[in-house]
Amino acid sequence: LLVNYEEGVSLGSAQVRLGLKYEMKEKRFTVFIMQLSNCSALALLADHSIYVRVAVLPCSETTRCLFRTRGVLPQEAVELNEVFGVQVAHHALRQKTLRVDICFTSKSGKEECLAGAQISLAEIGSTEERTTKWYNLLNYMYMPEMNMK
Amino acid sequence: LLVNYEEGVSLGSAQVRLGLKYEMKEKRFTVFIMQLSNCSALALLADHSIYVRVAVLPCSETTRCLFRTRGVLPQEAVELNEVFGVQVAHHALRQKTLRVDICFTSKSGKEECLAGAQISLAEIGSTEERTTKWYNLLNYMYMPEMNMK
Repeated sequence: LLVNYEEGVSLGSAQVRLGLKYEMKEKRFTVFIMQLSNCSALALLADHSIYVRVAVLPCSETTRCLFRTRGVLPQEAVELNEVFGVQVAHHALRQKTLRVDICFTSKSGKEECLAGAQISLAEIGSTEERTTKWYNLLNYMYMPEMNMK
Repeated sequence: LLVNYEEGVSLGSAQVRLGLKYEMKEKRFTVFIMQLSNCSALALLADHSIYVRVAVLPCSETTRCLFRTRGVLPQEAVELNEVFGVQVAHHALRQKTLRVDICFTSKSGKEECLAGAQISLAEIGSTEERTTKWYNLLNYMYMPEMNMK
């Protein structure tokens, strides 16, 4: 875990670089999973391959809403460059949230997720242009903290 | 639950309107909890008062990072207009994630949260101006769906 003692303890986050695009004519929402950085903040075991799981939620029953990238060995920075698309009307997409998680398959074969970003699509535009940003991945281990303070 | 049968099932989201501001000179991050809308999507009991819980995560040990608004009875739209501030350097804030949840206190006295938004602060600016947006609140009940597809 990346810990850095300026001003109390400020903990680092792993990050994912995503591109998002909506095409009005094709009614198509596209998610580009580009890169991961600062993966040491995930506190992973070195021999576990990780992947990115992408979900467009709530899920419509008629459309696929869950995707997974290939697995990669965790390094400080990872290039993924995978693309997923969902067919959805713009007004329906604006009710949805994109959830992006870093997961691995445990020895028992179960999917376990370590950290994630959640991106509200309420204000997603329809400019046909890809907007690319870095997003912090909130480590699940920090979530229970919230109940203690 | 708001269900609407255009193009399969497109489920509505409750939304929260937030203002975010970072002041460089004072090293102060301010969160304005302004309004809730489409609260019927929370599938709440009418006699439960709800509140908004705000957390700036990961939490530094030296700073308060968790806040709660007053309780309100759930209506279709709710005005909150509460403000919370955190003292934090800009480079530290950019490693953090803002988590905003709609919660209530159960009959047993436990805090239970229904839905939430998660906002990466990786690209938060330092323009001193408040940016105001609507964010979809992802209902926790949709999260387990992800393991089934």
